[in-house]
Amino acid sequence: MQLNLNADLGESFGAWSMGDDHGLLGIVNTANVACGFHAGDPLVMSRTIDEARHQGVSIGAHPGFADLQGFGRRQMTVAPDELHAMMHYQLAALDGMARAREHAMTHVKPHGALNNMACEDKNLAIALASAIADYRPDLILLAPVLSELSAAGNAAGLTVALEVFADRAYTTTGALVPRNKPGALLETSEACIGHVQAMIAKGGIVTQCGSILETPFHSVCVHGDSAHAVTTAQALRIALLAAGHELLPLPVLLQT
Amino acid sequence: MQLNLNADLGESFGAWSMGDDHGLLGIVNTANVACGFHAGDPLVMSRTIDEARHQGVSIGAHPGFADLQGFGRRQMTVAPDELHAMMHYQLAALDGMARAREHAMTHVKPHGALNNMACEDKNLAIALASAIADYRPDLILLAPVLSELSAAGNAAGLTVALEVFADRAYTTTGALVPRNKPGALLETSEACIGHVQAMIAKGGIVTQCGSILETPFHSVCVHGDSAHAVTTAQALRIALLAAGHELLPLPVLLQT
Amino acid sequence: MQLNLNADLGESFGAWSMGDDHGLLGIVNTANVACGFHAGDPLVMSRTIDEARHQGVSIGAHPGFADLQGFGRRQMTVAPDELHAMMHYQLAALDGMARAREHAMTHVKPHGALNNMACEDKNLAIALASAIADYRPDLILLAPVLSELSAAGNAAGLTVALEVFADRAYTTTGALVPRNKPGALLETSEACIGHVQAMIAKGGIVTQCGSILETPFHSVCVHGDSAHAVTTAQALRIALLAAGHELLPLPVLLQT
Amino acid sequence: MQLNLNADLGESFGAWSMGDDHGLLGIVNTANVACGFHAGDPLVMSRTIDEARHQGVSIGAHPGFADLQGFGRRQMTVAPDELHAMMHYQLAALDGMARAREHAMTHVKPHGALNNMACEDKNLAIALASAIADYRPDLILLAPVLSELSAAGNAAGLTVALEVFADRAYTTTGALVPRNKPGALLETSEACIGHVQAMIAKGGIVTQCGSILETPFHSVCVHGDSAHAVTTAQALRIALLAAGHELLPLPVLLQT
Repeated sequence: MQLNLNADLGESFGAWSMGDDHGLLGIVNTANVACGFHAGDPLVMSRTIDEARHQGVSIGAHPGFADLQGFGRRQMTVAPDELHAMMHYQLAALDGMARAREHAMTHVKPHGALNNMACEDKNLAIALASAIADYRPDLILLAPVLSELSAAGNAAGLTVALEVFADRAYTTTGALVPRNKPGALLETSEACIGHVQAMIAKGGIVTQCGSILETPFHSVCVHGDSAHAVTTAQALRIALLAAGHELLPLPVLLQT
Repeated sequence: MQLNLNADLGESFGAWSMGDDHGLLGIVNTANVACGFHAGDPLVMSRTIDEARHQGVSIGAHPGFADLQGFGRRQMTVAPDELHAMMHYQLAALDGMARAREHAMTHVKPHGALNNMACEDKNLAIALASAIADYRPDLILLAPVLSELSAAGNAAGLTVALEVFADRAYTTTGALVPRNKPGALLETSEACIGHVQAMIAKGGIVTQCGSILETPFHSVCVHGDSAHAVTTAQALRIALLAAGHELLPLPVLLQT
Repeated sequence: MQLNLNADLGESFGAWSMGDDHGLLGIVNTANVACGFHAGDPLVMSRTIDEARHQGVSIGAHPGFADLQGFGRRQMTVAPDELHAMMHYQLAALDGMARAREHAMTHVKPHGALNNMACEDKNLAIALASAIADYRPDLILLAPVLSELSAAGNAAGLTVALEVFADRAYTTTGALVPRNKPGALLETSEACIGHVQAMIAKGGIVTQCGSILETPFHSVCVHGDSAHAVTTAQALRIALLAAGHELLPLPVLLQT
Repeated sequence: MQLNLNADLGESFGAWSMGDDHGLLGIVNTANVACGFHAGDPLVMSRTIDEARHQGVSIGAHPGFADLQGFGRRQMTVAPDELHAMMHYQLAALDGMARAREHAMTHVKPHGALNNMACEDKNLAIALASAIADYRPDLILLAPVLSELSAAGNAAGLTVALEVFADRAYTTTGALVPRNKPGALLETSEACIGHVQAMIAKGGIVTQCGSILETPFHSVCVHGDSAHAVTTAQALRIALLAAGHELLPLPVLLQT
């Protein structure tokens, strides 16, 4: 099976570091790069683009709410015209910087509260997908499986890459188990690898209670916020390759 | 003679308004659009791009220091790699937003303290011009006559549009008389029109003491921060047209 | 009857002006001063404190969400410990600046989305009131009549000043008619004066459909965001004085 | 000899961590707490105050330029009235938050570029010291030995605590050797301890070339930005105690 590994990167800001970008860029095929609103700054973005290009990692915009203090994790009510403009601004910033550095922005994955809200709120999902299509209709939308956001991406005519999480448990409706519930996070490399392999074998989401929600998926999201997370990502990569799967950047996988 | 009128626009922010953009966009040929660092936000940028396109006004980036509270007027020391990245970020944001709205970003004019510092500091001017050329070498650099910035633009291979100010007096070296000195500002429409006409007639800067500094120039900067300023800009436009001059957007004037 | 007129002030930011603070400070008895999160900056705060002291106007904190671009009008989800800390920070900033300038911060009125949310969300109202009481229990809470916020203020042991709006229509439950509904705003000075006089005569809110919701109230909120608004505020002041009412700063009115 | 150990703390921001505050608070006597302009946010400040109180560490404001992206390390030109207001705002924010949490703000140490500029620019130093004295004249100013800032503090009538650095080499004029010069940083615990002991023995600064600049000093600044730095700070503490010195919070040491 052809698959993709993606991670959120470029989330340092000024003097503050976040995550092991260098470590992850040697593991994943695709990076979601923060655009300066919830994290990232111009210099961090430049360096992330350069290293991704150097490592053959495809990049996409990771736009979020204008909320540095809350790291884009606090829900905000944003009017439709503001949402459209803030999406274009962030997409354009990364797009142009990537082009000037001889790399290409090929996808979009919304960040944090913006992403979570768009997975459940159909109107927000439509507004978000149409803002992306209106900016560049050739962009891939990287969205969680079974979400309003992925549906809106399809309806807007975008190529949609469906995403599952290696280290998160799913409810019976296909939503992520909230972080404060027991079992929400798979804490060992073995559990994460087993989870992904089960989803590949079953052709869909394996929920916390063992039921299957059939769905195609293209990409597995991994994290780099701790040494443990990077080790898990690396172990998952090795296990998938050993099982004969092919790991590809999003635009190669989806032949856009 | 073929000339251009330019103005700084899109400098509102959120709930706060700045200047009479609507009034100015009916007068000038070219607008310098704030990019969100010293002023402007995504929604303000969207609206400014739309109205400029509608009025046939060419647009360029007006990048500044990341200093909303100081409106980009406070000098800051920024390292060369930060300067390069912050220029690319701001240029890319406006460039992509303009393209998505069927307009084109065709020039760059730095804002406030960044512009002032680059007019006098050769190293900063070189860094700034090379960041622009590295982003898109076809961009026009709109820079004050007789400045280090215009020299650096030429050396970087950029098309340089030379700018004079309608309402500011010049010292014998071609610098602007500081705002806190007597006579720094020409306060009537008649004085501004006379000043511009004298510079056209003499083929260069007419200094406060009456001497001439010969230099070509392409564009006259006007302001919109008061009702009086808009009236002056309009009167200047009428006077120049009545004198048989042709007023053109920068990319037409410079045939880029 | 003893009454208070209050207004939101100090909402300029850097180079951007908002409202006619000078005009309003000659009319109202009490000013709610922005604290730098949704509007205001240290210099604006200093000047607002000075002029309020000079005009005999009592001041209070007008804390909001950390959202300059949205002017604190966008709802945000903020965790209880963050809410507590952001309230203390803003209260402390104004409190200390006022003391250093020989004025006194005597009340708190939350701003925008924070205020609106706390009027309807009991848990948020309790968190907000307890943060204020925990900072300085002698502070007056200026809160809309019939709101969860006023109830929470009483429960927290704060002196609560109840507020009505001169220029806004009320629903049958005592909420403000949303701005996008017909008749939400009373647009003439006469209508505003009549509205306030009716509320005084009836001893409570007069709703849009004419019913009465009995409630004491202490303060009438007026606005200064347009020349018209200042004129209305002045006309209301004159009408109330002419009718024999006494207009007092909040701490005098409530004898705290 | 009675001495003080101080460190800069509370410089995390939102989701981003900076330094080992917990480790340092068990070592130093006095903490300089960031106030939200260059670093720190309300929640970080709350927690830093609480842990400092718990550990018996005295606290002071560590105000900086409003430059999160540059961590307050970029020089900015700020007008005198803006400087005064931004100092009062930051001092007031920490002062009030500390009081509400049953701790006391007893000193001020400017941060980064603001501190560096005030050490060399007499006018800035005077403006800064007078802003502090105007806010609360009982505050201790913690300033580098032999600096314009310490002189201005004395002239303004403030109690001045003079500071030396454990891990930085000094030029023959008593300035810090710039970080990019060889030998600027003392890289082992032994070197730092030896440096401090030599300064105690000689009664002043021991410069890079071995000369002595006699000066009293009260406090030694240590850092916590790496595990190594915390180890060094701890080793220095142990060595000073072993040598019979007494380590005290600033207000105890200076009996304010």
